[in-house]
Amino acid sequence: MKSMVPDYLDAVLQGVRSDTSGERAQYIPELATADPDLLSAAFATVDGEIYGSGDVDVEFTIQSISKPFVYALALADRGFDAVHAKVGVEPSGEAFNEISLEPGSGRPRNPMINAGAITVHSLAGRDRESADDRVARVVRGLSAFANRPLHVDADMCASEMEHAHRNLAIAHMLRSQDVLVEDPTAIVEGYVRQCSVLVTTRDLAVMAATLANAGVNPLSGDQVIPAPVVRQVLTVMATCGMYDAAGDWATQVGIPAKSGVAGGLIGALPGQIGIATFSPRLDAHGNSARGVSLFERYSNDMGLHVMEVPPTARSVVRANEARGSGAEAMRVLEMQGGIRFAGAERIVREVVDTVPQEPRVVLDFTAVHSIDDVARRMLLEVARRLSLDGHDVYVVDPDGIVADPDSRADHRFTVIGHIGRAAHRRST
Amino acid sequence: MKSMVPDYLDAVLQGVRSDTSGERAQYIPELATADPDLLSAAFATVDGEIYGSGDVDVEFTIQSISKPFVYALALADRGFDAVHAKVGVEPSGEAFNEISLEPGSGRPRNPMINAGAITVHSLAGRDRESADDRVARVVRGLSAFANRPLHVDADMCASEMEHAHRNLAIAHMLRSQDVLVEDPTAIVEGYVRQCSVLVTTRDLAVMAATLANAGVNPLSGDQVIPAPVVRQVLTVMATCGMYDAAGDWATQVGIPAKSGVAGGLIGALPGQIGIATFSPRLDAHGNSARGVSLFERYSNDMGLHVMEVPPTARSVVRANEARGSGAEAMRVLEMQGGIRFAGAERIVREVVDTVPQEPRVVLDFTAVHSIDDVARRMLLEVARRLSLDGHDVYVVDPDGIVADPDSRADHRFTVIGHIGRAAHRRST
Amino acid sequence: MKSMVPDYLDAVLQGVRSDTSGERAQYIPELATADPDLLSAAFATVDGEIYGSGDVDVEFTIQSISKPFVYALALADRGFDAVHAKVGVEPSGEAFNEISLEPGSGRPRNPMINAGAITVHSLAGRDRESADDRVARVVRGLSAFANRPLHVDADMCASEMEHAHRNLAIAHMLRSQDVLVEDPTAIVEGYVRQCSVLVTTRDLAVMAATLANAGVNPLSGDQVIPAPVVRQVLTVMATCGMYDAAGDWATQVGIPAKSGVAGGLIGALPGQIGIATFSPRLDAHGNSARGVSLFERYSNDMGLHVMEVPPTARSVVRANEARGSGAEAMRVLEMQGGIRFAGAERIVREVVDTVPQEPRVVLDFTAVHSIDDVARRMLLEVARRLSLDGHDVYVVDPDGIVADPDSRADHRFTVIGHIGRAAHRRST
Amino acid sequence: MKSMVPDYLDAVLQGVRSDTSGERAQYIPELATADPDLLSAAFATVDGEIYGSGDVDVEFTIQSISKPFVYALALADRGFDAVHAKVGVEPSGEAFNEISLEPGSGRPRNPMINAGAITVHSLAGRDRESADDRVARVVRGLSAFANRPLHVDADMCASEMEHAHRNLAIAHMLRSQDVLVEDPTAIVEGYVRQCSVLVTTRDLAVMAATLANAGVNPLSGDQVIPAPVVRQVLTVMATCGMYDAAGDWATQVGIPAKSGVAGGLIGALPGQIGIATFSPRLDAHGNSARGVSLFERYSNDMGLHVMEVPPTARSVVRANEARGSGAEAMRVLEMQGGIRFAGAERIVREVVDTVPQEPRVVLDFTAVHSIDDVARRMLLEVARRLSLDGHDVYVVDPDGIVADPDSRADHRFTVIGHIGRAAHRRST
Repeated sequence: MKSMVPDYLDAVLQGVRSDTSGERAQYIPELATADPDLLSAAFATVDGEIYGSGDVDVEFTIQSISKPFVYALALADRGFDAVHAKVGVEPSGEAFNEISLEPGSGRPRNPMINAGAITVHSLAGRDRESADDRVARVVRGLSAFANRPLHVDADMCASEMEHAHRNLAIAHMLRSQDVLVEDPTAIVEGYVRQCSVLVTTRDLAVMAATLANAGVNPLSGDQVIPAPVVRQVLTVMATCGMYDAAGDWATQVGIPAKSGVAGGLIGALPGQIGIATFSPRLDAHGNSARGVSLFERYSNDMGLHVMEVPPTARSVVRANEARGSGAEAMRVLEMQGGIRFAGAERIVREVVDTVPQEPRVVLDFTAVHSIDDVARRMLLEVARRLSLDGHDVYVVDPDGIVADPDSRADHRFTVIGHIGRAAHRRST
Repeated sequence: MKSMVPDYLDAVLQGVRSDTSGERAQYIPELATADPDLLSAAFATVDGEIYGSGDVDVEFTIQSISKPFVYALALADRGFDAVHAKVGVEPSGEAFNEISLEPGSGRPRNPMINAGAITVHSLAGRDRESADDRVARVVRGLSAFANRPLHVDADMCASEMEHAHRNLAIAHMLRSQDVLVEDPTAIVEGYVRQCSVLVTTRDLAVMAATLANAGVNPLSGDQVIPAPVVRQVLTVMATCGMYDAAGDWATQVGIPAKSGVAGGLIGALPGQIGIATFSPRLDAHGNSARGVSLFERYSNDMGLHVMEVPPTARSVVRANEARGSGAEAMRVLEMQGGIRFAGAERIVREVVDTVPQEPRVVLDFTAVHSIDDVARRMLLEVARRLSLDGHDVYVVDPDGIVADPDSRADHRFTVIGHIGRAAHRRST
Repeated sequence: MKSMVPDYLDAVLQGVRSDTSGERAQYIPELATADPDLLSAAFATVDGEIYGSGDVDVEFTIQSISKPFVYALALADRGFDAVHAKVGVEPSGEAFNEISLEPGSGRPRNPMINAGAITVHSLAGRDRESADDRVARVVRGLSAFANRPLHVDADMCASEMEHAHRNLAIAHMLRSQDVLVEDPTAIVEGYVRQCSVLVTTRDLAVMAATLANAGVNPLSGDQVIPAPVVRQVLTVMATCGMYDAAGDWATQVGIPAKSGVAGGLIGALPGQIGIATFSPRLDAHGNSARGVSLFERYSNDMGLHVMEVPPTARSVVRANEARGSGAEAMRVLEMQGGIRFAGAERIVREVVDTVPQEPRVVLDFTAVHSIDDVARRMLLEVARRLSLDGHDVYVVDPDGIVADPDSRADHRFTVIGHIGRAAHRRST
Repeated sequence: MKSMVPDYLDAVLQGVRSDTSGERAQYIPELATADPDLLSAAFATVDGEIYGSGDVDVEFTIQSISKPFVYALALADRGFDAVHAKVGVEPSGEAFNEISLEPGSGRPRNPMINAGAITVHSLAGRDRESADDRVARVVRGLSAFANRPLHVDADMCASEMEHAHRNLAIAHMLRSQDVLVEDPTAIVEGYVRQCSVLVTTRDLAVMAATLANAGVNPLSGDQVIPAPVVRQVLTVMATCGMYDAAGDWATQVGIPAKSGVAGGLIGALPGQIGIATFSPRLDAHGNSARGVSLFERYSNDMGLHVMEVPPTARSVVRANEARGSGAEAMRVLEMQGGIRFAGAERIVREVVDTVPQEPRVVLDFTAVHSIDDVARRMLLEVARRLSLDGHDVYVVDPDGIVADPDSRADHRFTVIGHIGRAAHRRST
């Protein structure tokens, strides 16, 4: 059998190929003369499978798509407070090149506009690092997201510096407000090098998948950045990633995303997938015209919108029945599916409503495929309370998904690998 | 056993009780003299369980919390295009009472600022409805969200009208731009009545749960608004619901939310829960001070942030094994958990990599607890392709979660209720 | 001989007649259907001569040209502090219908934008006057400026009220900030009546001449408003009168001016002349297109720019000579021209440098045609000091232009009507 | 006798000496450590007399007071159109360091804000001049205004460059808009050197007097800049010179003015006087606190407000009488004072109303001390028309104030030096 995913990718790509609307970025020759017909898309799953269609191995400059990743690096390197002191998280409703500093503090409103991204660049790496070392750290960091060594396009970089008047203006303004504390020109040069890193559509999909995978690169398995940083970065992408079209994107597409002026566009769907597209012609907002169409199609076809209410699930409680009799009588609750707060609450309610009379209570998690912290804590508390009520409690957990083996001693219940074992145990 | 959810709610509520920061809204006596110590919180699950703590049955005016619900009604009544033509979806980064009209069109930037909400009020109900009928439709709609008949507080309403200068200014401005096309004073009066609807914390939790439950009221089971409207409303709440603190809220709390000047605050987590709190003292952004603290605590304790990457799940493919031999040989794949695009892709990959040699292939969905459209389509396509490859394909789907019984005739595979049936069938 | 002034007016008017650029105001039928070819200009001198050319007796609504005059009335009625507390004097650099309130205070930036003019209207007349009495006071005041009873165009007024959404928005906003303290609708109605007062080009020239003449109507001789109010009004006209074209007007034309949407335009040159033009087609700034051309021409042809440095004058000291000998010897200084501070300083210097040795000193002001307060005080001080130095001082002042007859007793010098009298007096 | 002008200056200075409100500029040590008690004022008359009080010979840096003078140089060097294409003339209502570029063009709103002044600096001298030559031209130009060679304070300059972040930001922004077309850093360095020119209060008074004197330095007699440039500069000072306090200054003081951050403040009253003050403590608007008080006092005491309506003058027609009889009969009109348009119009009217019957008409300008172009043209036209009416016309003009000697041949009248000559001539 052949997978239908490549077919799907090809078909959707074909569907937008005839759209030649928009214009390449014009402000430097290297972008203005890019092949406008290049077109590609790639999906990278959180377990490392990559699907591509079109020119997925053509290199282009990452440009503003570097912003969320370097924001992640800065948060990881300096901590939330240090970064938040310098760069806000509020949507500005403005174009990418607006200065948009907060009155008073002079803090850029968010890390996705240039003022914020330049400031964020200055916060990558250790404090008081040299400009070169900082760029090296940024390129290393981006490479870790992509799982291959990336490089700066020196020609692009030189050309960008010749047209960096506005970014220099922004940097000097930030310097005047002490948001930047080093030489503004050196920081802008570093930022331009960051933006001139060469990537392929495949690279970008892997980078996005790393965000979708809680910071763990699905190819290398490395934790590139901590999970809490990922949450922050995805949130800021969701609210500020598409500049003055942020609201339209959030409602229509609903995938945390970021575009670059060279034509790249990425989206990361938490827990599921990283997506990247590449097409150099830009729409009036400065986003890749065909890239936006592709994402609209993906979101719509695949239900990828983050505010999509998930399909109603079968009950997390698969069975609730009394088995045996007398001293051997036991109440068995079989759970299934993924359990987060809402599921755990349902289970708690089931137990409360049941008021088990049997001496033994078995909580069977064999069919549970995932569980989060709050659910785990709640269910362990259920076991504890049942035990306090005088029951012998068995937690069937063959893969150790619920019970922490290290702290098993403290539990007032018995963890077993198979429900059969509960039947053969003597009551305590 | 006693549920720990009420304990949790009580404990968290107790934790913020001593915080007396902030001030009641001062602009009308009715709000300025509210009991500042009132404090409550309620959770409503998507299957209709309600937990409350504190003063959950005290009535207060809904105020701006009406905005997302009436936006939902207007979208349902007039359609997306008609509403979008009048009110944008872009975060404004501004306080609630900023006029914030888009240059040129004069369209309010989003439905959560007053200019947008006044316009949205004018779009509830049928076109050319009388002002009274429109208010009646709004109150009926809010009541459907709450699952009880709600009423307007006439005194509050009168007092608000006396201080409605700014809203009247906004309405006249909108009228001058032909965004409003009726008498601005009548529309503001209707809007003030909308804001003066009395609700309890319990009501608000049910209303929020209706949003979390794809528009179906978890108590009545009624589809109050269509699911696509819910997605739109939740998105706009996420980006614009907390005014100029939208970015801080999105990063810190990450629950689509809306606050009201009387002290109410709601949040809706898609697929899980509706939350409401009430405490009249407001912080500098105009949001309930203790309400914000409660939500921060809930989000943090319970992992409710929408950008929280879900815990890594057990593989969606529970088993992949050959059984039997010869003509009876069959390849069995057991799936489990909830399946969306990423899970379906994993299954596809499993099948592709396996290259089954057995004449029979069994796809067992017994342990699958939920599946969405795209995953269903992909898996039916897997069955179809295996069949085209010459396999006898059996889909084990006891509850009809995958296969649409109505179109079964077209399938090139056999749907069965139990895997045992595959073994006893003759090959075709 | 025939005066060349009418010839000049006719010629200049003829020069712009073929210019049909611009559009009539479109927002109400009464203005949109005005005869677009109407064209007129009038000059009124500060001694009451009026020159007109074209349709100088056609009536049209005064519109925004009422703003400086009602500002004058409010300043006269309530005093500077009361008005300044409500309306600023800063140029806004914005169009006439921008709200442009000062952050914090909510005070309109200046009285020439609508927000300021509406507030100013509310400050005309006595405090707590009825809306009708206030309008009556305004119409009476405008009539005093024009020296004939003016009337409101009721049809225009009704039509304007139908399209007053923006002004109502502004008024409600001002009410919300407590800048207005009465019913906003009533104030806007009064303001619309103010704007609907019918005037002719001739009327406007007389009204402007009253400002040019220090508040004294040149026809009636009545002091319509005090001189200090005139200074304030002229200054605000100079900096804010032409909206967002204020700077271009100030540099190109340099005459304090005000335009109205019906096509009127006035300018007042302190001490010289009031000018009015009328032509209904408006340019992009909302100013009468041909009116602006006419003023540019007048300013250029006649050197009417307020920052025009006056031609270098002959010395204010016409003669400084010793006459006679012995005890009869006298030092005679003949002054001429108009004397303000700079001239007085020059005279002081002449006296100081001369170090008169003669027993008698004659200061002859016969040829002086004007003198202001500071110059008068300085020259009286010269006389006093010469007297203290031991001279017999004679001030020749046939028309009492220098010496205040009432306080003559205090002077240590002799005021005479003709220099001959000095020669015949005995030394004291 | 001793002049009272120095007494006055001393007294006013003494009156503000105890005011220690405000703070020295803090952004560079050289300004932050200036002696805050320094205080001085100087008057320079348009004929070159200088009065000073206090520390009039202490040098300090000119700072923003250079702006109007370099604007004058740029207008003189490049012409109005070239400068206007790059820098507007609209008041911005903003603080000095606001960027305040016009949307679209990116043109700074006016030459008094830093963005405008930096652009203006780049327009001084010839096109494509080196940065050093441009600074040399600026220093030479400022020296011509001051009538002594001025020098740059190198230490101040170096210190300013270290804190020029905001100006560099502005310059890069202007470069990005192609308003600047050279290296922004070099232009800012030049601008900083311009601002670091050392001047005394005496110098500034002379510089201001040069503006008051139509561009002619009253000490050297050199025409430093053409008169039309002066008018432009004075207008822009009047509307934009005092930043966000422009309106208050225009109404309260009414003298075209400019302040500098080192504590200097100048005002120029056309045709009368240049004034300068120095006191380093600045008010909240960044203007010298005591300097503002001094100017308020001067304006009030001396009637220096440009919108002050001049005192009503004696009639410009001093006498209008018939003399002699028969063929010798002549009509004599004696004029007096300064004649601009309004005076000329009055004379025209006198002649028209008189309808002279005498064969000879004598227009006696002996007592006229000044006349401007338009008045001269009108009065020559009076003479021409009288001649056409058949009169023998004599213009008594001993100093050639009215009649242009060069074109005398064309006149149809006779110019004489004394009225007596008219009597002795034979009729033509």
